Amino acid sequence: MTESGVPGPVEVIGAGLLGTSLGLALQAAGIEVLLTDLAPENVRTASGLGAGRARTPDDRPRVVVVAVPPDHLATTIAAALDATDAVVTDVGSVKSGPVAAIADHPALARYVGSHPMAGSERSGPLAGSASLFEGRPWAVTPHAASDPQAVATVETLVRLCGGVPIRLTPEEHDKAVARVSHVPHLLAALVAGRLADAPADHLLLSGQGVRDVTRVAAGDPALYGQIVDANATAVLELLGELRGQLDAVIDAVEQSDRSALQSLLAQGAAGTRAIPGKHGVPDRPMATVYVSVPDNPGELARLFADAGTVGVNIEDVHIDHDPGRPVGLVHLVVAEDRAGELVDGLVHRGWTARS
Amino acid sequence: MTESGVPGPVEVIGAGLLGTSLGLALQAAGIEVLLTDLAPENVRTASGLGAGRARTPDDRPRVVVVAVPPDHLATTIAAALDATDAVVTDVGSVKSGPVAAIADHPALARYVGSHPMAGSERSGPLAGSASLFEGRPWAVTPHAASDPQAVATVETLVRLCGGVPIRLTPEEHDKAVARVSHVPHLLAALVAGRLADAPADHLLLSGQGVRDVTRVAAGDPALYGQIVDANATAVLELLGELRGQLDAVIDAVEQSDRSALQSLLAQGAAGTRAIPGKHGVPDRPMATVYVSVPDNPGELARLFADAGTVGVNIEDVHIDHDPGRPVGLVHLVVAEDRAGELVDGLVHRGWTARS
Repeated sequence: MTESGVPGPVEVIGAGLLGTSLGLALQAAGIEVLLTDLAPENVRTASGLGAGRARTPDDRPRVVVVAVPPDHLATTIAAALDATDAVVTDVGSVKSGPVAAIADHPALARYVGSHPMAGSERSGPLAGSASLFEGRPWAVTPHAASDPQAVATVETLVRLCGGVPIRLTPEEHDKAVARVSHVPHLLAALVAGRLADAPADHLLLSGQGVRDVTRVAAGDPALYGQIVDANATAVLELLGELRGQLDAVIDAVEQSDRSALQSLLAQGAAGTRAIPGKHGVPDRPMATVYVSVPDNPGELARLFADAGTVGVNIEDVHIDHDPGRPVGLVHLVVAEDRAGELVDGLVHRGWTARS
Repeated sequence: MTESGVPGPVEVIGAGLLGTSLGLALQAAGIEVLLTDLAPENVRTASGLGAGRARTPDDRPRVVVVAVPPDHLATTIAAALDATDAVVTDVGSVKSGPVAAIADHPALARYVGSHPMAGSERSGPLAGSASLFEGRPWAVTPHAASDPQAVATVETLVRLCGGVPIRLTPEEHDKAVARVSHVPHLLAALVAGRLADAPADHLLLSGQGVRDVTRVAAGDPALYGQIVDANATAVLELLGELRGQLDAVIDAVEQSDRSALQSLLAQGAAGTRAIPGKHGVPDRPMATVYVSVPDNPGELARLFADAGTVGVNIEDVHIDHDPGRPVGLVHLVVAEDRAGELVDGLVHRGWTARS
């Protein structure tokens, strides 16, 4: 047992984006990391980045983290239980399939699944980063026979990587990610699919709304195909509900039934309010302050310096550039009850600002 | 005719968010604006902000802009054609319904519809801003009998407000907004609706993806009900296509047909690539640089000052706060071929940065 509470060394199987990020985070926390990957060049790259060293046959890992694609999870977890006496976890997107596949393994108690809600549109070891898990929810999904000490070890490992452990059963986890990830992804892909063959001048009217709705649909079709397929039961239940709701919308529009249409839209608005604030903290009311800023890097620094002087904390920023114009519109997101103060302070310092 | 090329004065009917913003933009460009609203307090508020003065019976507007809710567009446009000899336009979200409703008006040639792709989650005159239309696409939708000079006047007015005119027929416009706005909104509302009754611990796993997919669904259900109802034909055609695609997804998942599922997801990914860059300019390849920043306003100013010194232009910014931690993760979006340079420059200045 190291000082951190996580026994080392930790073996990471699969040195892609997640595995390399894990290695970097654990090594930064002073834990020795052993890397394994079918592709030796991934291990070399991840090692070169400081994510650990190649595992040798004499190594005796105390914890094994399986970070391989969904199709190979169950066999790799079973092999790790066979080959070691370590606590074994994985970082796969779907949790009940793998545990069912290894339900008869004699060392099942040493396995505890997990799933960090973190990723990137990039993949491979070069995209890895020690900060990938910083502040992210990270599901920890013990099964009925998981050893409580193994669960505690996995939760400690999650915290050590900067994640926020959220304990759910494998079945609850799969229903949750179907709802907050897999089904939104599929629907975004369908909406985006309707853009693929649209006339180009129609797409010129695209605003921020359609960009936001469809952004996730840019993800790798092969990977998301594996993920959705692995979570078919939970996904199908929600898709069935959505088909019913879509039929209700079509009926309401066909019959020009305003009150039915409004009530479906109101249910959606209620749903957006149900999402907790970042990292599970309830949202404070926020307001956006808009500032016109000449399009050069020095002006942005001056704006933040002035905002700092006013003393209002900036929660988020968005820059709305127009390549054809010399001025950009900077959106500063601040607590609602401080927006007026920030506008006044910025205007006083010569900025064109409004909330 | 004023120097700007837009004849004045311009009457704005409806002093809400859009009308007030128009008044502010036109007055800033030196055009006299006359305000009309069923609610006298809206006119007082908008006037107080500098969006124009209350119209009197003796005023002779040369251009009228109708900025009223969808249900009242056609009657207000017809009344403006009756009451004046001005060019009449409107800023409604749907274009073929109103022109069909006034098809027999003897002064139809003086009417040219328009639709700025700009808005806010707020409404009313106090939310108005002269910069609301800056760099936004703004559809101009002449009908077959529109006077070419009237079309030119409306396009000049759009440019004067900072918008980018995009000419489409009313029918093409309605098909375009069904695809890039109304249908994405409805599908986002359905996905969000599935969140409303989800267990709270399931929603703790919500990441940025589901927030983006559902953000627009927070809009006013009554307003979007009017908009969708007014564009029923175009919306229903696309919803019918989506129902077919949803059935295909359900079949693919039920039968575990990976190749069908992947091809539907690939069509979505292609759709995201079809959306033009902001303001119709093709996207340059961008990369994100991640920087760990202590959570206080002075640090942000120092970061932008250092980024300015490195000389790489920052295209967008996002701040990922974690209220429980003393460090935030700032995402700086820059041209892909400059990301390495920015990382090096920031690391050299003592920042923890990666791309």
